[in-house]
Amino acid sequence: MARDSTATKQRILDAATVEFAAHGLAGARVDRVAERAGANKQLIYAYFGSKERLFDTTLATHLERFIEAVPFDADDLPGYAAAMFDFGVAHPDLLRLLQWHTLERPGELTRMEQNHHSTRRKLAALAEAQAAGRVDNTLPPAELLAVVLAVARAYDDPAPTSMDVRRASVATAVRRLVTPGPEPSR
Amino acid sequence: MARDSTATKQRILDAATVEFAAHGLAGARVDRVAERAGANKQLIYAYFGSKERLFDTTLATHLERFIEAVPFDADDLPGYAAAMFDFGVAHPDLLRLLQWHTLERPGELTRMEQNHHSTRRKLAALAEAQAAGRVDNTLPPAELLAVVLAVARAYDDPAPTSMDVRRASVATAVRRLVTPGPEPSR
Repeated sequence: MARDSTATKQRILDAATVEFAAHGLAGARVDRVAERAGANKQLIYAYFGSKERLFDTTLATHLERFIEAVPFDADDLPGYAAAMFDFGVAHPDLLRLLQWHTLERPGELTRMEQNHHSTRRKLAALAEAQAAGRVDNTLPPAELLAVVLAVARAYDDPAPTSMDVRRASVATAVRRLVTPGPEPSR
Repeated sequence: MARDSTATKQRILDAATVEFAAHGLAGARVDRVAERAGANKQLIYAYFGSKERLFDTTLATHLERFIEAVPFDADDLPGYAAAMFDFGVAHPDLLRLLQWHTLERPGELTRMEQNHHSTRRKLAALAEAQAAGRVDNTLPPAELLAVVLAVARAYDDPAPTSMDVRRASVATAVRRLVTPGPEPSR
């Protein structure tokens, strides 16, 4: 029974990923999630509470996978940014989920436990690497992290022409941002 | 009569800005735009064609204003990025419109005439500044522009804590990206 319920929840989350990535929160229909998952709507509400909480849980599940799949490395931020870029290419649904979530659940991501812990660990690692002189310390850790994340997902064009150039550019840009020392003089 | 129609169109676009920024394309209701603008729905369709085209026109209008208000300067990219940041802070609706548009009209922005011309001019100016050695030439112009734009809108948190720190960080990060020379060695 427990195994069945785990499998059912996973089917619901998979169906919810497709539905929310396509339509966002307001446009999503729990009916369609139920149909796609082969589960009934009442069960979805029993497991997840509401459409909003289903959306949050769907995103949180993907974030957990991302955090596991792309470990943060303060000593190789270009590699981390390139790995984030690769993850985004491999999981375009996650990028769309994140964008919808930013628009429709503003501020909620910051409050998510998964994200909160992960961000705290990243900032601590960055601060340490800066203090040890391994990462440039011009920007405060939180600002540097925000900029690195922004560069890693700089491309929101859905039909990119050259992924290799883009991936290399993300890594190069981050390298320029984080290599210790002042910016080169002219 | 011509002046009346210009004023009416502007009222419709203002109302559409509020509606689309709040609800996106799928969630927007032309009825509510009509009510807010004090115009009737048939007139909106007569002027703009469809809800999709009203959305595109609304975004294009704001883009034109942005392009006028924040002139591109290949020789002062940190200043350009900081000015973009300021514009985003002053016009949060535009950022939301852009995010909805990316999700709901993927690829359409690239095809917009306003954006297309402006991007071509920016890339030409960047290539020239790179060739003259005034801007670092490690990244191809298109990639450098994508990264600079990403840094300028790195923050999508709706309740920022310190705008001054963020603004300065945007400018500093872009300075490190574009100042000619290799990244500093350790």
